[in-house]
Amino acid sequence: MNVYTLCDIGNTNADILSPRGKQKIPLADFIPEEVEGDVYFISVNQAFEERINGLERWHNLRGYVDWNRYYPTMGIDRVMVCEAVGNGIIVDAGSAITVDRMVEGNYEGGFIALGLQSARKAYGSLSTALDVPWNFEVDLDKMAKNTPDAVVIGYLSPLVSKIRSLGNPLYLTGGDALRLASYFDEPYVKDDLIFEGMKKLIEKGKPC
Amino acid sequence: MNVYTLCDIGNTNADILSPRGKQKIPLADFIPEEVEGDVYFISVNQAFEERINGLERWHNLRGYVDWNRYYPTMGIDRVMVCEAVGNGIIVDAGSAITVDRMVEGNYEGGFIALGLQSARKAYGSLSTALDVPWNFEVDLDKMAKNTPDAVVIGYLSPLVSKIRSLGNPLYLTGGDALRLASYFDEPYVKDDLIFEGMKKLIEKGKPC
Repeated sequence: MNVYTLCDIGNTNADILSPRGKQKIPLADFIPEEVEGDVYFISVNQAFEERINGLERWHNLRGYVDWNRYYPTMGIDRVMVCEAVGNGIIVDAGSAITVDRMVEGNYEGGFIALGLQSARKAYGSLSTALDVPWNFEVDLDKMAKNTPDAVVIGYLSPLVSKIRSLGNPLYLTGGDALRLASYFDEPYVKDDLIFEGMKKLIEKGKPC
Repeated sequence: MNVYTLCDIGNTNADILSPRGKQKIPLADFIPEEVEGDVYFISVNQAFEERINGLERWHNLRGYVDWNRYYPTMGIDRVMVCEAVGNGIIVDAGSAITVDRMVEGNYEGGFIALGLQSARKAYGSLSTALDVPWNFEVDLDKMAKNTPDAVVIGYLSPLVSKIRSLGNPLYLTGGDALRLASYFDEPYVKDDLIFEGMKKLIEKGKPC
């Protein structure tokens, strides 16, 4: 196995997987030139991407993706989790919740819901009455008879039902993966789907 | 039939149904003392409500509701649309989308989703890539292969599926009622459910 470093550049942090382990480094403190050896990266941060595109040892995995199989404006992190899984439903629950379907290595489309924090903020900004604590223990199959349950059910129940309707296997990743896991039968909760997708792409090599 | 005026006080406007017809008046320009005759009102605006509670000809319909049948923090506008319908699913699509179920005059609970504008704003504040025009013609039963469809499907498809699963009859009211109507089989689109509920409560009279 080659020794290299994987780097996932977000808008505020860089997630790094090197032979020495995992690290999350704020971009403000991150000096890409100091990372040793070959680095394969993805980036959703255009400014930072332009800076590192010029570095010889830094390889942009955007160029490794067969874009005929996805769509051009699809987030590179979504492409990575799809590459990692290959077959199934993939839910990446972060600031947005992306839901994608792969069937035998083919991308079959997806959708984007608001993330938990983003939805909570949106309810809160509608009225102080809807700025309530969220109780994730609530039964999503019931209709609510109080405001906090009405909000959690209103946000989660439609989304969870929709995801359930897409079938199995179901992979959950992202910061809120564990929080969502209890609503599904036998989901696979995976921390590192992005890194797994990156590794698979490197093994495949650049498309001709 | 008694001659009276109905008034629905929101946060920025008063909706009025008088024997002369319907009017929407900005609260800043609205002088309640100038309305003639008896006025029955509901209000979600606490400050304005305190002001008109002292007026002799103004009757607060909050006191006409049998609150044992609802829950104490339930929005008074939701109570009115439930009173209007009595049996069925009621969707009030405004800044929030409230969904409630009535069975033979009994309130069976509900939930609160984000309204279309509020959801659109929340997507837009997540990233410029998600600040896209919304195409309501998209097929909600498909998975998307472009960003604008992924956003509209991500927001609408779970919500529409959930509402469909609740059964019939389905009543749609509020500013976005017509926009949602095309996603359902034979919905009843009703402009004036709040006023209809107010009238029914007045006919019932105050609970003992």
